[in-house]
Amino acid sequence: MTLKEVLTAYQERVNEKLKQAIDGLPVVAPKLKEAMSYGTLLGGKRVRPFLVYATANALNADLKLADAPAVAIECIHAYSLIHDDLPAMDDDDLRRGHPTVHKKYGEATGVLSGDALQAFAFEVLAKAEFEKDMLSNQVEMLKVLAVGSGYQGICGGQELDIEAENRLVSQSELEKVHQYKTGALIESAVELGLLCVKDLDENIKKGFRIYAHCIGLAFQVWDDVLDIISDTETLGKPQGSDIDSNKSTYPKLMGLEKAKEYAKSLASTAVASVAALPFDTRILQDFAMYIVERDH
Amino acid sequence: MTLKEVLTAYQERVNEKLKQAIDGLPVVAPKLKEAMSYGTLLGGKRVRPFLVYATANALNADLKLADAPAVAIECIHAYSLIHDDLPAMDDDDLRRGHPTVHKKYGEATGVLSGDALQAFAFEVLAKAEFEKDMLSNQVEMLKVLAVGSGYQGICGGQELDIEAENRLVSQSELEKVHQYKTGALIESAVELGLLCVKDLDENIKKGFRIYAHCIGLAFQVWDDVLDIISDTETLGKPQGSDIDSNKSTYPKLMGLEKAKEYAKSLASTAVASVAALPFDTRILQDFAMYIVERDH
Repeated sequence: MTLKEVLTAYQERVNEKLKQAIDGLPVVAPKLKEAMSYGTLLGGKRVRPFLVYATANALNADLKLADAPAVAIECIHAYSLIHDDLPAMDDDDLRRGHPTVHKKYGEATGVLSGDALQAFAFEVLAKAEFEKDMLSNQVEMLKVLAVGSGYQGICGGQELDIEAENRLVSQSELEKVHQYKTGALIESAVELGLLCVKDLDENIKKGFRIYAHCIGLAFQVWDDVLDIISDTETLGKPQGSDIDSNKSTYPKLMGLEKAKEYAKSLASTAVASVAALPFDTRILQDFAMYIVERDH
Repeated sequence: MTLKEVLTAYQERVNEKLKQAIDGLPVVAPKLKEAMSYGTLLGGKRVRPFLVYATANALNADLKLADAPAVAIECIHAYSLIHDDLPAMDDDDLRRGHPTVHKKYGEATGVLSGDALQAFAFEVLAKAEFEKDMLSNQVEMLKVLAVGSGYQGICGGQELDIEAENRLVSQSELEKVHQYKTGALIESAVELGLLCVKDLDENIKKGFRIYAHCIGLAFQVWDDVLDIISDTETLGKPQGSDIDSNKSTYPKLMGLEKAKEYAKSLASTAVASVAALPFDTRILQDFAMYIVERDH
């Protein structure tokens, strides 16, 4: 299968599992449930679930073990977007070309649907039925998800990102912001895939971890590049919106061409890191290249 | 030991563990860490940790097993207060007589510190080191915490509470609001205590669960009563603030005296439910009575 086919297959798989999980919630507060569903199912590339599945698959793990972590990490990602869009944060009216959750359901429900989706991520993962000898992996998955979601992950990153607004920061400071804001959860996704296998060799893990670290960074650098070269229609948000808000970006710090080169060198390192492993990692390699070739 | 002594002992125990846990976080985003600490350590009765410890202790469990769930559930409670205080929600400037987190650190950090504390709750619980034969209990604890924190718990309850504002609701509707908003997490606290013991008999659990359900409701009814009869200084918020905001309350629905009686009958049911068990549950019994006798 080509990368595109695999991406679509995993996208469809996680979308179905997400829909099942949210639809399966009892009727407590219908508006809140609708907002949770809207904020999660409206679309999105499903990069994190893809990484969970593709990592697990490369390791020949049973993909059923990857369903709960894939759903869980996408719930975390969805909640973080809902909260990032709030007026107190980035104050965005549109997400993927549609009204943001707080625009559609009001700000209180915006906050609450994000909160509820975060809890739901842990609920889905803790409710998954693992064999007895995989329970320590399940606990480890919950830990990985919590760390990537919290102070040492997306929350810390978003705080640093806000604090970095309206001033030009150094490249190392910018990398720190992104490492926490987006990198940590990308790394968590790969780690969740690794945890679908019992007692995996540390050196194997290391190869995947370098891959995860490099693509996480490449993703952000290329996003910054796209923000300059792409147009509003393709991205679903006004072109150059990061520039308008005086955010520090890689093209602003190092120039557009250097930023492109940097993203591509990160992707190459990622490819080399998993290519050296005794597993079929071609899909992961193709994905690393796709990150720095995509136009949206 | 008297109830007061036990309450103080558990309060001090959980405060120390909370402080250790938060202080132990690496320096990522100092302002965010400070806000997390401020929102958690500013005070509070620590009712939920008390229930974890007191339940575990009644069952003769090792209290060390109760530390992580006690810290975790208080982090959930603290985060929910931070978010409830936000301008988009209850818009409160004061909490326990001090500026609320968003007043002190800004709204973005208010949202983020709540988000980070929720993740931190799961991190603390997932990082706790349980013996191998207790791993399924640990996963169960994580599930209980997630359900009580989410759509079927405090988030659903807060959404219903907001939707119920500015209109008079029926008693059954009000109980539904409170069951989710505060009852669910009180029940989670007792459940976490039960999970400190392996393979506990279902009938024993049932007795504790009835207790938890009744005190959860009694707590809310008595809070409504106190809002009428107490004064600003004692409560740390303006007297009658729930009345001003047109919130439905038990005294408003059933009259002050009937509301008092109702709270006391719930406490009696709670007492009877655990008194019948073959364990020393005196502290839990005293606590049920304390709920409906306290003046703040």
